Amino acid sequence: MRAVDLIHKKRDGEQLTFAEIDYLIKGYCQGEIPDYQMSAWSMAVFFRGMTKKETADLTMAMAHSGDTVDLGAIHGLTADKHSTGGVGDKTTLVVAPLVAAIGVPVAKMSGRGLGHTGGTIDKLEAIEGFRTELQRDDFFAQVNDIGLAVIGQSGNLTPADKKLYALRDVTATVESIPLIASSVMSKKIAAGADVIVLDVKAGSGAFMKSLEDAEHLARAMVDIGTEVGRRTAAVISDMDQPLGAAIGNALEVAEAIATLKGQGPKDLERLCLTLAAHMAVLAGKAGSIEEAELILREALRSGAALDKFRALVVAQGGDPSMVDQPDRLPAATAFVEVKAESSGWVTGIQAEQLGLAAMKLGAGRATKEAAIDYAVGMLLKKKVGDAVSLGETLAVLHTHEGYVGLDAIMSETAAAFTIDSAQPEAKPLLLSIVTADETRRL
Amino acid sequence: MRAVDLIHKKRDGEQLTFAEIDYLIKGYCQGEIPDYQMSAWSMAVFFRGMTKKETADLTMAMAHSGDTVDLGAIHGLTADKHSTGGVGDKTTLVVAPLVAAIGVPVAKMSGRGLGHTGGTIDKLEAIEGFRTELQRDDFFAQVNDIGLAVIGQSGNLTPADKKLYALRDVTATVESIPLIASSVMSKKIAAGADVIVLDVKAGSGAFMKSLEDAEHLARAMVDIGTEVGRRTAAVISDMDQPLGAAIGNALEVAEAIATLKGQGPKDLERLCLTLAAHMAVLAGKAGSIEEAELILREALRSGAALDKFRALVVAQGGDPSMVDQPDRLPAATAFVEVKAESSGWVTGIQAEQLGLAAMKLGAGRATKEAAIDYAVGMLLKKKVGDAVSLGETLAVLHTHEGYVGLDAIMSETAAAFTIDSAQPEAKPLLLSIVTADETRRL
Repeated sequence: MRAVDLIHKKRDGEQLTFAEIDYLIKGYCQGEIPDYQMSAWSMAVFFRGMTKKETADLTMAMAHSGDTVDLGAIHGLTADKHSTGGVGDKTTLVVAPLVAAIGVPVAKMSGRGLGHTGGTIDKLEAIEGFRTELQRDDFFAQVNDIGLAVIGQSGNLTPADKKLYALRDVTATVESIPLIASSVMSKKIAAGADVIVLDVKAGSGAFMKSLEDAEHLARAMVDIGTEVGRRTAAVISDMDQPLGAAIGNALEVAEAIATLKGQGPKDLERLCLTLAAHMAVLAGKAGSIEEAELILREALRSGAALDKFRALVVAQGGDPSMVDQPDRLPAATAFVEVKAESSGWVTGIQAEQLGLAAMKLGAGRATKEAAIDYAVGMLLKKKVGDAVSLGETLAVLHTHEGYVGLDAIMSETAAAFTIDSAQPEAKPLLLSIVTADETRRL
Repeated sequence: MRAVDLIHKKRDGEQLTFAEIDYLIKGYCQGEIPDYQMSAWSMAVFFRGMTKKETADLTMAMAHSGDTVDLGAIHGLTADKHSTGGVGDKTTLVVAPLVAAIGVPVAKMSGRGLGHTGGTIDKLEAIEGFRTELQRDDFFAQVNDIGLAVIGQSGNLTPADKKLYALRDVTATVESIPLIASSVMSKKIAAGADVIVLDVKAGSGAFMKSLEDAEHLARAMVDIGTEVGRRTAAVISDMDQPLGAAIGNALEVAEAIATLKGQGPKDLERLCLTLAAHMAVLAGKAGSIEEAELILREALRSGAALDKFRALVVAQGGDPSMVDQPDRLPAATAFVEVKAESSGWVTGIQAEQLGLAAMKLGAGRATKEAAIDYAVGMLLKKKVGDAVSLGETLAVLHTHEGYVGLDAIMSETAAAFTIDSAQPEAKPLLLSIVTADETRRL
């Protein structure tokens, strides 16, 4: 087998076999197939696409390129979720304890963040003492004990995906649905969960700008999961504005805690309940989404979900008083109101731009080595559809005395809000549900 | 400027500017842009194509990536020809002295061959003493003196093309008309001639299998030449069988000499006259192709063309007695007849397969370092359209006593001939003429 022949085959629109795809991925991972052949192959895939079978084969070849996690030691069907990313996305902090509270075990590996705000792991570390590195046996034991553990990625998971993604990033081959889908799913499959629910964003602030593209991506990922025997579904939601009101690590933890008490922003609660309901149904804890939502709402109302979050914090060494008194979380020392420069209705909020502003305040990393300030970020006071008067507060920046460059960040924050004289039509948050059987517009 | 953005732009079907193309080529040549970006870009070009302007820009960027030859020291408009390659192609050996004989100066740089048989330079070296390395000043002086010089490529011509071609070869991005056209034309433009006539082959034995593809390639090359101020035309001919009867270095020199005497195979003579006529017209030596052919035929009849070939041999140190007595050229010592295994008509001859057989006999190089045996090769006794009886000779292998593996080569040679019971329709040799103004089917 020669790599050049496989590139040729894909270039001409033919289908590759598992053996051929595995040869490419193994050879690339081992340094036997050079970058210049994989980039040409990736560009051919960009233009020719891949069949369902090829995409699943690529996913499995990448999933098995390094360590895989065997969750067999955990009792019951484990569940995992994945978000395609977004500004102010704290769904894992809500969904993981929420489903654990109704008996769906969650053994989650999460990442750190680059840009905007930190990842889930960074956010949890805003809680004093919270440890995100556990030995594999302790990780399993904790899940069996309290039904939940969230740790940083350890071991050598999907090295082929890491190498290929870095190459695609510099060769303009990122925007290929089979390549994106196999990249995401290879990591989820290597991480071992039986149930995978995908939180896919669509809209101007998301990677997938149109609902159609988001549905194609979701369909590709659900098909992969189904093909390889994982129970998989995807929820597509609107990403034309940040989710919830908080952007910044401690601020998002506090918002997640409020949501677990049933006092969070409605959009965040809605999305978390939907994701959790799909996890519950796929894990066999409810017969329908409606039934699952009833059980989940009860877990919020009774305090069981918050208890599960507290148990997680305690089990991983964090200070539980920060859960019960979120004002004990790291806090900013200066608060700056960003005001509306005209009256009307908020018709759009550029999430990306607010994420960048939060990063500049110190909430995210511009480089891998940068440190995160857990305390800083912003709270949105207006969301899309809200009426606003000239001079009214749009957002409050959480920062520190003496921060240099605040004027620019204030202008950028204000500019992220579009204010029009006409009231916008109400837009739904949830757009589409993709399961093994169907794609259903909501 | 960033290479990834230019790949992205081309991937999405946009047009690149000269500055952008030049940035890619310069950066690649200087090692600043890595192979993996150029291969992804080449694959994007494969799918998206390039405009006339982009193709010309790429050609000029590659032409100026290294040394260029300034033929300004030569009196009159210089002419060059290029063949897209083929088994048994000895047209340069005929065309160069032929046009020189009617006053069109030819300052030709030729290559060595890999595979099949040697290149023009290897063939000329079959003549004892023939030197193919001349100092630049001596090269120009010889052209001004006798109107003709043929040397090996010297200096650092089009390094960007060499590097890019090698990369395309291993990334399945060879078969792109703008990339092929710019590769050929960058070399011709760097070599300096005012007039460029392209000998493009079409058919099963050629790189371009269909006439349409061959016309597209010819059109792309003629457009490039025209765009950058070179007088350019292309002749498309059939390559469903080898040209002439000889395959092998000394055998082809002898056939070229016969053709210069007006005693060569008709297909070879026809193609050479057509190529030479276009060179003569573009160089201003004749008002029409018909007029040019009359003058050229007279040069064959009078012996002027053969005299020019002899003058070339003498000027470059070769033994002129080999021109007048071609049996003094290196000769084989064993001759093996390959016979027909059935009766009927020859309906096809796989040129590629015969080229490979000739290479195995020693006429070509399997690797860059291999030595060539000038004497060996084969002479075809039957061509497409000829009637053949069982046991009649199809070809004579020229080899040496004790050559091991002859049986296999005999079988391969016989297998290259397709013999059918039905007489094939006569097929024309010349298929199409492509000039700056028109593409004309013949």
